[in-house]
Amino acid sequence: MRMQIGAFLARRLSEAGVRHLFGVPGDFNLSFLEQIQDADGIEFVGNCNELNAAYAADGYARILGLAAFITTFGVGDLAAIGGIAGAYAENVPVVHITGAPPLHAMHSGALVHHTLADGDYDNIGRCMAEFTIAQARITPANAAFEIDRVLRMCWLERRPVHLQLPSDVTHILVEVPDTPLALTAPSSDSEQLCVAAQRVVDALNTAHAPVLVVDADADRFDVTELVQKLSEKCDIPCASLMPAKGALDETSPRYLGIYAGAASAGRVRDAVENADCVIGVGLRFTDSSTGLFSQRINPNTFIDLRRHDLSIGAAQMPGVMMRDLLARIVEDAKPAVRPAVIDSPVLANATEPGPSQTDEALTHTTLWPRVRGFLRPGDVIIGEAGTAHAALVSMSLPAAASYIAAPTWGAVGYALPALFGSLTGAPSRRHLLFIGDGSFQFTVQELSSILRRDQKPVIFLLNNGGYTIERLILGARSAYNDVDDWRYSELPRVFNRRENTLSFVVKTLGELEAALTQAEVADRLIFIELMLPKMDAPALLKQFAGRLAEFDYGERGPRNPSPAVTQVGRSVGSAYERNHVVDESA
Amino acid sequence: MRMQIGAFLARRLSEAGVRHLFGVPGDFNLSFLEQIQDADGIEFVGNCNELNAAYAADGYARILGLAAFITTFGVGDLAAIGGIAGAYAENVPVVHITGAPPLHAMHSGALVHHTLADGDYDNIGRCMAEFTIAQARITPANAAFEIDRVLRMCWLERRPVHLQLPSDVTHILVEVPDTPLALTAPSSDSEQLCVAAQRVVDALNTAHAPVLVVDADADRFDVTELVQKLSEKCDIPCASLMPAKGALDETSPRYLGIYAGAASAGRVRDAVENADCVIGVGLRFTDSSTGLFSQRINPNTFIDLRRHDLSIGAAQMPGVMMRDLLARIVEDAKPAVRPAVIDSPVLANATEPGPSQTDEALTHTTLWPRVRGFLRPGDVIIGEAGTAHAALVSMSLPAAASYIAAPTWGAVGYALPALFGSLTGAPSRRHLLFIGDGSFQFTVQELSSILRRDQKPVIFLLNNGGYTIERLILGARSAYNDVDDWRYSELPRVFNRRENTLSFVVKTLGELEAALTQAEVADRLIFIELMLPKMDAPALLKQFAGRLAEFDYGERGPRNPSPAVTQVGRSVGSAYERNHVVDESA
Repeated sequence: MRMQIGAFLARRLSEAGVRHLFGVPGDFNLSFLEQIQDADGIEFVGNCNELNAAYAADGYARILGLAAFITTFGVGDLAAIGGIAGAYAENVPVVHITGAPPLHAMHSGALVHHTLADGDYDNIGRCMAEFTIAQARITPANAAFEIDRVLRMCWLERRPVHLQLPSDVTHILVEVPDTPLALTAPSSDSEQLCVAAQRVVDALNTAHAPVLVVDADADRFDVTELVQKLSEKCDIPCASLMPAKGALDETSPRYLGIYAGAASAGRVRDAVENADCVIGVGLRFTDSSTGLFSQRINPNTFIDLRRHDLSIGAAQMPGVMMRDLLARIVEDAKPAVRPAVIDSPVLANATEPGPSQTDEALTHTTLWPRVRGFLRPGDVIIGEAGTAHAALVSMSLPAAASYIAAPTWGAVGYALPALFGSLTGAPSRRHLLFIGDGSFQFTVQELSSILRRDQKPVIFLLNNGGYTIERLILGARSAYNDVDDWRYSELPRVFNRRENTLSFVVKTLGELEAALTQAEVADRLIFIELMLPKMDAPALLKQFAGRLAEFDYGERGPRNPSPAVTQVGRSVGSAYERNHVVDESA
Repeated sequence: MRMQIGAFLARRLSEAGVRHLFGVPGDFNLSFLEQIQDADGIEFVGNCNELNAAYAADGYARILGLAAFITTFGVGDLAAIGGIAGAYAENVPVVHITGAPPLHAMHSGALVHHTLADGDYDNIGRCMAEFTIAQARITPANAAFEIDRVLRMCWLERRPVHLQLPSDVTHILVEVPDTPLALTAPSSDSEQLCVAAQRVVDALNTAHAPVLVVDADADRFDVTELVQKLSEKCDIPCASLMPAKGALDETSPRYLGIYAGAASAGRVRDAVENADCVIGVGLRFTDSSTGLFSQRINPNTFIDLRRHDLSIGAAQMPGVMMRDLLARIVEDAKPAVRPAVIDSPVLANATEPGPSQTDEALTHTTLWPRVRGFLRPGDVIIGEAGTAHAALVSMSLPAAASYIAAPTWGAVGYALPALFGSLTGAPSRRHLLFIGDGSFQFTVQELSSILRRDQKPVIFLLNNGGYTIERLILGARSAYNDVDDWRYSELPRVFNRRENTLSFVVKTLGELEAALTQAEVADRLIFIELMLPKMDAPALLKQFAGRLAEFDYGERGPRNPSPAVTQVGRSVGSAYERNHVVDESA
């Protein structure tokens, strides 16, 4: 059949399950936006800038499986590229579409706007290729197969891809396939699969203390259910690396908690490091997921399942898809019952609300138990890098909750636009965002997009006057770690003229209680500003920050002074001093 | 002498005239920020995010000659890279410093945060190399000469450079030169210079109607004064390409106006295209500076002075520095008096205030004459891409005024952070920003940085409910070109708790008059929201937009419907409709 190239791309996106196209208009993409406007099953959703669009697409893909966003050439692409790299680092399938200059300008090397005005039209593509798994410049000659190839690669590897759509080809008619786009999983080599499954099952059958450890890929490749079935059938305890927070049912009696090497809770560390069979599902040992490479997994007992292959000890086995293999193992493994390694639910204490209705000032110690009590099954919880993420990964989540964060890429400012994306993809689920003030300032304008679509998340703004995660690493009292003191709670009504939001400024536990009580029932966006001490943070973060300073600055580098020195050190006056509880002992 | 590497870099920046280091802290750059804090003559100035830091540095460099900003590896670099590419496209010398992961992590290929967690530490650098003129990864072995080389290249080419400073080398002591950094201009080949100067002087002496045409490089390489001396001595009229707006004294009787090919005013076009000797100073003919490549300059009469070489007709002459050559020509050229080509000051009408104290609604036709009356000699005027820039380049500026815009790169959102940068560099000059609502949303948080430093610009927010420049190109009534309707005028008091700002919402000429009267005398930040019709724009932009649609979408692509159709076409209700004067006729 014959279709206009742009209409075909819109159709393919829709067939891939993408119902919303994020992005920002620009002259090179307007002709395609006209086609999106006319297309069935896909809607353009504008963002306030391109980086926010990339982050929104990332959040959408995590909750819905695949996302797309559009920018204009050069300026838009480069503004968004940090978000694309983040999607790569975090294994998120995002299709980035660029409205590019017309082919005739590329061919003649014309000096057009949004380029370096040097005739080079390939520099942007070369950059994009560093952070995408497939790329194409769409032409009338290749549109019919390049679009499909690139979308398939996106799905296959759960990583971002890049399409350049020159502005003058969108309306060109080309012959395209009638058949819908099939994003099928590749099949495994059947013999390899049999052998691999048998070996894993044998290992499990002889193990006294096996353990399952999952990373983000378990979620991206949609095998968490299989992992949980295996865990249940063979009574195997499960742990997650930090990037897989929320992927497993944390209310399961077999859920251990987060494994992070030496930074793990003792029982998790023991279960993983003393196991006689460790089945890893998509594991990647990064500095932040391992307490700075302190993981200790016996390589002889390690079965390393990766997206499209595996290794068992030293043996490498290509051609075996993670999903196929897990399905086979679940089928073939012998049911077992083992002595419990978990004597009580992990972090149960975190689920008990602290004292309420008091004038006690908020601290991380008192805040999070009450937050845990506010969470409901099925919530989508978004944790920005810094104190928020550190607290949330330390807490067990309700059943069927989802957790979104970007701990590997660690881009500050990610969470607010990601909230917008996730809410657009799953509007019927309650969303909660936890974000620090410094982070919030990075991408604050996307709050207006949330309000514009009348979305109703609960936003917790942790106001500690700056970059507390950095302060813990270095510059505890240095001015460069401070940010200005906005009237945060007034922003929802400034960003949108509908008076349909509720804002709170919370300094005490009693005020927190009152805000949460209203948040439980209100059918509107809730914005809760939490006033917290400058140097207060969850224990996990304090530990990690000190070790990171050593890693980053070496023996000759500077360190934060000891607490006694810090208290009399350089101090920069700010509005936060009034709330400042010196708490640098931990 | 021996110095810590970071302290040496701080010293070099300071010697290069950089008194402020923009940027955002991150764990890989904190050890260097401690050194900046301890250094003399340079101060860290925090931004709300990295792209804003890059734009601020760009604005600072334009007003002060050279700028620097710092980010953290990966996330920060890529967030800022669009601003770096913009500095490259616009020929602005900006030093980008990255706090990079420690050398030991790079050497071992460790999977650290802010990378793709694949052991590749070179991908970011490869991207940066696309948009910088020199790059280095600083090590203890190369710091003493690589820092100097890279800073010199930045100055030599007036283009951005990139330094990666690994976090563990900042405090390493190395032997460095005692002598201050010399950013000297390269010298010309003396014989080539003589020959070139003689040829240009000969051409001038025999010409009946010569003309000088300058582009942005005239400003960047600081030769505008020489150009004006030559113009005066030999009575040669001068025109600017759009990127050089504001570089020449526009009150001079010899100033013609903007040359933009067929988009020029008639007298400018005639003077340039009928000249028998055109001396170009750093010219680059881009789509936006030439009304889509409609320039017509006789190649036989064209003398093309470039930064470090020139051509006269078909003859190429390397080794001749633009500045040396102009100085020599000014000296050697024979004084002349020519019949006036300019019978009356250009655009004199624009300087006459329109009627005031009336209820007439604001339009671009009535607004800009009054704005012109508000401008003072010595003002720094910043025009964001879109209607603001189009109006400002169409207006003659007062003497000694500076104009900042980014018409080649054309990144929406540039102007507000650039204002912050320029104000930081030249705090004693009055600054005026003109920016559309859609653009303002891109980088709005940097308003808080402006307030935080107690800067007092006059900000004109042109509120037309969206991207009017895009609407004029395509999608006149399409929803994707709309943005949400913020309470813009309340933002100054939300972003800063000091009550030291004045805000106005202006719908009529009378209200404009009242606001400007107060703005004249108030010693505080002034924020003036101007309500403008959705499809109203300066004539220049309307003309260009239609031609651009043809260039971008080709013969098969879509076009805006004719005005009659548009008025009954798809319309999306918004708060702007109440102000919407349908004006799509031009």
